Amino acid sequence: MEKTYRSIVKWGDKHEEILEEGVKALVKEKFGYTDDDFQPNYLRGDEEVILPDSKLPEAVVDSLIKICGKENVDISAYGRALHSYGYFYTDLLNLRKGNIATPPAAVVSPRTEEEIEEIVHLCNRKKIAITPVGGRSSVTRGVETPHGGISLDLSKHFNKVLEVNETNLTVTVQPGISGPELEKHLNSFGQGYTCGHFPQSFEYSCVGGWVAARGAGQESTYYGKIDNLVLSLKIIAPAGVIETKTFPASAEGWDLMRTFIGSEGALGVITRVVLKIKPNREEQAAYASFIMKDFESATKCMRQIMQSETGYPALFRISDPDETATAFKIKGFDNSKEDKILKVLGYKPGKRCLMFISLKGDADRNQLMKKKIKKIAKKNGGFSTGKKPVVEWLGQRYSSSYLRDPLMDIGIMTDTVETAVMWDQLVPLWKAVRRYLFQRDKIHVMTHISHVYENGANLYFTFLSPMKKGKEMEDYLQLHKGLIDSIHQNGGSLSHHHGIGRALAPWMEEEIGKTGMGMMQAVKDFLDPKGIMNPGNTLGLH
Amino acid sequence: MEKTYRSIVKWGDKHEEILEEGVKALVKEKFGYTDDDFQPNYLRGDEEVILPDSKLPEAVVDSLIKICGKENVDISAYGRALHSYGYFYTDLLNLRKGNIATPPAAVVSPRTEEEIEEIVHLCNRKKIAITPVGGRSSVTRGVETPHGGISLDLSKHFNKVLEVNETNLTVTVQPGISGPELEKHLNSFGQGYTCGHFPQSFEYSCVGGWVAARGAGQESTYYGKIDNLVLSLKIIAPAGVIETKTFPASAEGWDLMRTFIGSEGALGVITRVVLKIKPNREEQAAYASFIMKDFESATKCMRQIMQSETGYPALFRISDPDETATAFKIKGFDNSKEDKILKVLGYKPGKRCLMFISLKGDADRNQLMKKKIKKIAKKNGGFSTGKKPVVEWLGQRYSSSYLRDPLMDIGIMTDTVETAVMWDQLVPLWKAVRRYLFQRDKIHVMTHISHVYENGANLYFTFLSPMKKGKEMEDYLQLHKGLIDSIHQNGGSLSHHHGIGRALAPWMEEEIGKTGMGMMQAVKDFLDPKGIMNPGNTLGLH
Repeated sequence: MEKTYRSIVKWGDKHEEILEEGVKALVKEKFGYTDDDFQPNYLRGDEEVILPDSKLPEAVVDSLIKICGKENVDISAYGRALHSYGYFYTDLLNLRKGNIATPPAAVVSPRTEEEIEEIVHLCNRKKIAITPVGGRSSVTRGVETPHGGISLDLSKHFNKVLEVNETNLTVTVQPGISGPELEKHLNSFGQGYTCGHFPQSFEYSCVGGWVAARGAGQESTYYGKIDNLVLSLKIIAPAGVIETKTFPASAEGWDLMRTFIGSEGALGVITRVVLKIKPNREEQAAYASFIMKDFESATKCMRQIMQSETGYPALFRISDPDETATAFKIKGFDNSKEDKILKVLGYKPGKRCLMFISLKGDADRNQLMKKKIKKIAKKNGGFSTGKKPVVEWLGQRYSSSYLRDPLMDIGIMTDTVETAVMWDQLVPLWKAVRRYLFQRDKIHVMTHISHVYENGANLYFTFLSPMKKGKEMEDYLQLHKGLIDSIHQNGGSLSHHHGIGRALAPWMEEEIGKTGMGMMQAVKDFLDPKGIMNPGNTLGLH
Repeated sequence: MEKTYRSIVKWGDKHEEILEEGVKALVKEKFGYTDDDFQPNYLRGDEEVILPDSKLPEAVVDSLIKICGKENVDISAYGRALHSYGYFYTDLLNLRKGNIATPPAAVVSPRTEEEIEEIVHLCNRKKIAITPVGGRSSVTRGVETPHGGISLDLSKHFNKVLEVNETNLTVTVQPGISGPELEKHLNSFGQGYTCGHFPQSFEYSCVGGWVAARGAGQESTYYGKIDNLVLSLKIIAPAGVIETKTFPASAEGWDLMRTFIGSEGALGVITRVVLKIKPNREEQAAYASFIMKDFESATKCMRQIMQSETGYPALFRISDPDETATAFKIKGFDNSKEDKILKVLGYKPGKRCLMFISLKGDADRNQLMKKKIKKIAKKNGGFSTGKKPVVEWLGQRYSSSYLRDPLMDIGIMTDTVETAVMWDQLVPLWKAVRRYLFQRDKIHVMTHISHVYENGANLYFTFLSPMKKGKEMEDYLQLHKGLIDSIHQNGGSLSHHHGIGRALAPWMEEEIGKTGMGMMQAVKDFLDPKGIMNPGNTLGLH
């Protein structure tokens, strides 16, 4: 493999760098690109990675090698570069520009809990930073190493399933196991099970990251966020070990385990996770999709379904008018016979919205829910478009992130920002954020709802815009700041499932208050008194 | 009203002090009581309450009066005695004996958040203990005042509904509102709503206590524990105010709000609670009950229902063979025609178990679930006994606690202890605890499951035994210690929904570890640096 910056930017090998014709047409239409502009030659990062040597003292490297073995302590330039960033837009921009200001001094891949404990003790004694990582798919600057130190890679060895309990419906895993490895194990174990957690990053992310960043899967509306899937945790912190017990529920003071769900590596290393699982009833699933007349009626319909007390869909999405129009354009649906019929029926481009639903669990319940959902959708002016669009969407469910690389290659900035909001503030927030974004010349914005609750839902904004060449970073940061401000001022949470990392840290104190920040810092100071765990502003902590 | 110790022991006025004939027959059979033994004359506590004067300096009393008004600062002996204890067995024993070692120095009833903030500041400056209370129905010694100070009574004024939001399905309340007041408000608001939280203490307890002690209602299997019902909180702590925002979900670091659910008054005063509500679909409810052949098949059936992915029942209970036999005896069902038929069908006394189910939510879903449940019950050897027993049970759903007084009047110790446990440890734990209790001569033990999850359930043990006269306290404490040890050693949580208070504090460090305790203490030390909030070993904190 070439040891270039580009090779670090890229999502694995399985994803094509080619832009579909539909996307090209969109870029032409929205940004005035011509055929000549599609050469993938912008900030390619084709240069070989060059880094100064590791600053880790030789004695420390020797100690680490003694703990983990030579093959598990990597101080090579490329290994360290690979662990310098996650997959936030600015990370990719920096890599493409060959900017790696603060690489880790070593990448260490422990094999056992005992090794992790020894590493934590060693680093605590020597005041060396530790940043625990798995899939490094953070989009919040959560896995950077501003203080250098070691990147503790749990994905290489610390990735085993320790137990599947078919009576309790639980799986016990090490945190470095990836989504596909976990699901493969569960699907083929005994009667067949699933964890039901399918984040967009599924193919690359690990259980430890899901927990640390408080993630959500695409079917979280039924299975729950990771918060609701974790039953117990073990954490190795500089101050000691915390191992919560596995109970279905409890009232033993406040729930200490919850402190580590969303701790983003700043408190300790998660070394064991007990997750809920469910029988794999994939073959009993049902699907439905609708075209709704507008975003308002679509969200009202969604809310009524969630509040109907018939159960929750698994996948439950609404694409707003612009995302719907984009999908229609890319799929070549515009001006088809069906499109003409839809228009005649009053489902107008620029207003109409797609709604996708999958139903998991018991087959009979799914059928009942489908019937109820159809009734509610119809009452809200929805037009049923059947199973096919959902199944097609599921077939490419993880792929949209992979568009980022070829778009950046042609000088297009693209990012996603997400929030959660109560129902009564959802449409106003959506409008306010769009208003803000459309102040920019040449921008394409698509929004969907994809995680739904009785009390509200998330909003997920995707935007594309030509980069300001030469000022790519400042331009992005300015746009991003206003975008988060707009969410924050209009009743949205700073994040529904990406986490805070360093990207959103500046908003934390205003969000949770001075006393809230103090409380977080007090917990950190107790567990990590020397501040070695993922230090440098993670979550706004010092 | 007479100002006796007895008047404090008693649960309000609506409950009879008379033992039903069936209970008398049980007491005779189990403990060899004769008709003469039923005089309610044991440790009656008929003496008038006498307490030393309040130790609160006059200047502090004046300041409190200035903040809240004279009528809201009570330093009378009786008022302070009334706030000296909750309703734990030892509390009642102490009151009946006229033992009030550490009453509060004053009972203060604030009217506004501003008043609460002023009181917290005043007490923090003067190092005066504050114990927030609502219904005082704690059964864990959670509302005692070992350091004297003030009992902050939120039930008198701070008990309003601030907002019902019919779009978001939320209610915002002050914490001193009681269960019946909250439900009455919700039932009659707009389309009609319910919070779905019906703890055994419903008639007396308050929202603040539900949150502080991390409680559960009788229908928590469907509606969720209070942990799952709270969307946001405001807390006034000595170190400052924390007001969490209301989102359907979020990933803003770890969930600070969770720190206060189960904080038991030791971190600050909860002053506002946003709770989830649901439409009141009571008229759509469905009911089912079964006799199961034994406890093992009953719990297996329960587990299969919970894991069937058709939905969760609301009320979902199994009475173990001894509780079932007791119910049959008290209701006069023994040897009835129906009983004879059941016996012939193989449902033997001493083995058979009652299972009660209510289904809330959408009518069609309830019917589907009922069908599925019947099928699962039948497969596990269950015999359907219809709707009637459940409806009858619901008619007296809060009354069993009120038996305590007349039983203590005839010298019978009675208490309940509860835990939560994973499915594979449930039957072994049940057996181990029973083995322990039956080491005692003359004891009657009844157990039920009443809060159920896909991964496990709670166990709720009720025991009756004649007091060791003259050594009532030591005898109870010894029995209780062994009982908690037995639960703790057999995989059960210290509590599923009663909380820890001071009664279970001695087990906390072993349960959550030294680092866990340190972490809790660090949070307390930050929020309450002078240790004024419900001090003296609450949750094992100092």
